[in-house]
Amino acid sequence: MGYDLKPSPFAPERFPDMPEIAGATLFTTASGLKYQGRDDLLLVLLEEGTAAAGVFTRSATAAAPVHWCRRALRESGGQARMLVVNAGNANAFTGRAGEETARITAEEAARLVDAAPQQVQVSSTGVIGEPFEASGLTRHFPAMLAGAPATWEEAARAIMTTDTYPKGAAATCTVNGKQVRICGIAKGSGMIAPNMATMLAYVFTDAAVPAPLLQKLLAEVVEETFNRITVDGDTSTNDTVLAFATGKGGAKVEGDDTETLSVFRKALHAVCLDLALQIVRDGEGISKFVAVHVKGAPDEAAARAVGMSIANSPLVKTAVAGEDPNWGRIVMAVGKAGVPVDQQKLEIFIGGQLVARNGAVVPEYSESAAAEHMRGREIDIAVDLHMGKAALTVWTCDLTHAYIDINADYRS
Amino acid sequence: MGYDLKPSPFAPERFPDMPEIAGATLFTTASGLKYQGRDDLLLVLLEEGTAAAGVFTRSATAAAPVHWCRRALRESGGQARMLVVNAGNANAFTGRAGEETARITAEEAARLVDAAPQQVQVSSTGVIGEPFEASGLTRHFPAMLAGAPATWEEAARAIMTTDTYPKGAAATCTVNGKQVRICGIAKGSGMIAPNMATMLAYVFTDAAVPAPLLQKLLAEVVEETFNRITVDGDTSTNDTVLAFATGKGGAKVEGDDTETLSVFRKALHAVCLDLALQIVRDGEGISKFVAVHVKGAPDEAAARAVGMSIANSPLVKTAVAGEDPNWGRIVMAVGKAGVPVDQQKLEIFIGGQLVARNGAVVPEYSESAAAEHMRGREIDIAVDLHMGKAALTVWTCDLTHAYIDINADYRS
Repeated sequence: MGYDLKPSPFAPERFPDMPEIAGATLFTTASGLKYQGRDDLLLVLLEEGTAAAGVFTRSATAAAPVHWCRRALRESGGQARMLVVNAGNANAFTGRAGEETARITAEEAARLVDAAPQQVQVSSTGVIGEPFEASGLTRHFPAMLAGAPATWEEAARAIMTTDTYPKGAAATCTVNGKQVRICGIAKGSGMIAPNMATMLAYVFTDAAVPAPLLQKLLAEVVEETFNRITVDGDTSTNDTVLAFATGKGGAKVEGDDTETLSVFRKALHAVCLDLALQIVRDGEGISKFVAVHVKGAPDEAAARAVGMSIANSPLVKTAVAGEDPNWGRIVMAVGKAGVPVDQQKLEIFIGGQLVARNGAVVPEYSESAAAEHMRGREIDIAVDLHMGKAALTVWTCDLTHAYIDINADYRS
Repeated sequence: MGYDLKPSPFAPERFPDMPEIAGATLFTTASGLKYQGRDDLLLVLLEEGTAAAGVFTRSATAAAPVHWCRRALRESGGQARMLVVNAGNANAFTGRAGEETARITAEEAARLVDAAPQQVQVSSTGVIGEPFEASGLTRHFPAMLAGAPATWEEAARAIMTTDTYPKGAAATCTVNGKQVRICGIAKGSGMIAPNMATMLAYVFTDAAVPAPLLQKLLAEVVEETFNRITVDGDTSTNDTVLAFATGKGGAKVEGDDTETLSVFRKALHAVCLDLALQIVRDGEGISKFVAVHVKGAPDEAAARAVGMSIANSPLVKTAVAGEDPNWGRIVMAVGKAGVPVDQQKLEIFIGGQLVARNGAVVPEYSESAAAEHMRGREIDIAVDLHMGKAALTVWTCDLTHAYIDINADYRS
């Protein structure tokens, strides 16, 4: 990489404490495939009986490993014994050779643990369009499984590309008197966009959750977390969120127990939201974190369209970078969202301060107070459409010179 | 403006030669409303019998002058005696006061030429959300109309905001043995986006064209020209394209004469396309001009969606800025366009060279040749979806540091 990545100003001081998940063991190594001097290959060994669920990119040019994962989940009935993730090469738009690489990777991993290839989930992230041999990964598998297990932090580091810090989150909850642990790791910094299961994220729990229920919960929670963040509006070919429930912790989550379900869903939501926000806070070139709250929308789709229109607007994002409370650009972004907003009813807030109402700026608006808010690191924009009751928040970052530095020179 | 605008590398050496249009007289002045030391107010006096047509932004937060123009065109049956354009203040999201400003501006202009207010078209461009008094414009009208007429170049300069050069284009054609002159001026540099009548552009002809026919032709041609360019994907609240046919040149264009219609339409198309491309070539921060050709699409909407997805992708635009033939990002942008593309059939070309086919890079691909093309100023990207017969081209520019400089600091 030609550009020297500076750490995000939101980089946490240290990786969070995360408990072990019974039935899931992590291994990492340096594959030598692309990066020098760092681990870039992750294996997660899952005990028999682990349920798996996945949500993937909606890109029409989805990568080979995404195709593999979708089919493997379907053919295995949502069972998994292994997860393989490599960073540095996305195995996307690599044609038949790429499909072979994904298949052979899964077959070799499966052979080592005496499982069906469909019980192996495979993910790749990195450059698009450069085929590589499965052996570049598989030749490391026996030594990895024979070696010492890795920590969550090591696992999170092994899947990074332009990320400037490793991302992990954990939650616990108690269902029917038994403790449930949920741990997740994620990577992502650029090519982060709406309307899909964003980037690579893996969530593990020791609860027993039937695969169809796990799939339903994951899809719902992804919609409310990963699908509400954006860095640059560009949707990846490899976006993948996978959840694994080993069932080795003793707790059971079942569909007909609404109390249990609600507790577990809340913990799963907390882990996914934490990871999603960590991705935004490490958005390529970020200097400010932006929450865009939309309320009074006629329905959730309209709320999301308005929120994403603001969050993806280059003019809003550069205004934030320039610490300019340029609320006219928020008006512009609301207007282009494709929602029949009535500008006479629209209210706009910056940092909690009402800026505009009745189609114009309010007399008591203090631009100096808004400018003061914009000089902070956490920017809060809110719009109330006064059209209905739907409300939601999307999260993004600003658009800075560093984004251009990183992306005008990433491949070289 | 805090940022010192550098001229676009595509700035032409000189403004084009443009003939006078009989029945249309231009006047400019410095209103003192916002800019210092430059003309920022344009009046175009149109002789009686001038037909008018307009295409406007589809923004839900459209500005007061856009509301005025739509209603005035409807109520006047497409007749116009005057056009008023001010630069520096968009009169957008200015509430009831803004609507009053547009109305009073039209009434004052109409009074001076003894016309109905609905025969005055009014446009504004500049900052959003700051109301201003109509008198700031109207107090200059009598002196302007009494003074010397302006040239096309002076008129084009008077409507600029972040533009780095004035934009004009002209064409002539002959219908039924009579010469037709078509002249247009435009402004626009940022907040340029698809799915609307982009920015401010005014086209004048001395042919006689009935207003409903002029409206039909303008709408068709705008769809093929202004609606196929993008700088940053941000749709303005004030986008306006107006056409005026004075009928003072002697030529008549009528709907039942298909030969005449075709000749006139072609000339109108040439003027609009020329202006649209001048807007892209002055895109905020531009270093390279990019043509994105899409063919083999199932229909025009799909072709446009794929073309705009490529043209608006920050990752494609920064790769162009970095002179990197990063075709994987083109794959990504095709994939996220919402069109069910078959990646096995997709072909990608850079600078005319086939890069990828059958879901992978082709063996004969020369990255050095592609890199050489990327070092040029005019970048050519093409994709063939092999799904059908629809084809079109969209035009854009790259995303550079200068875009951020301009937009992080425009208001201050």
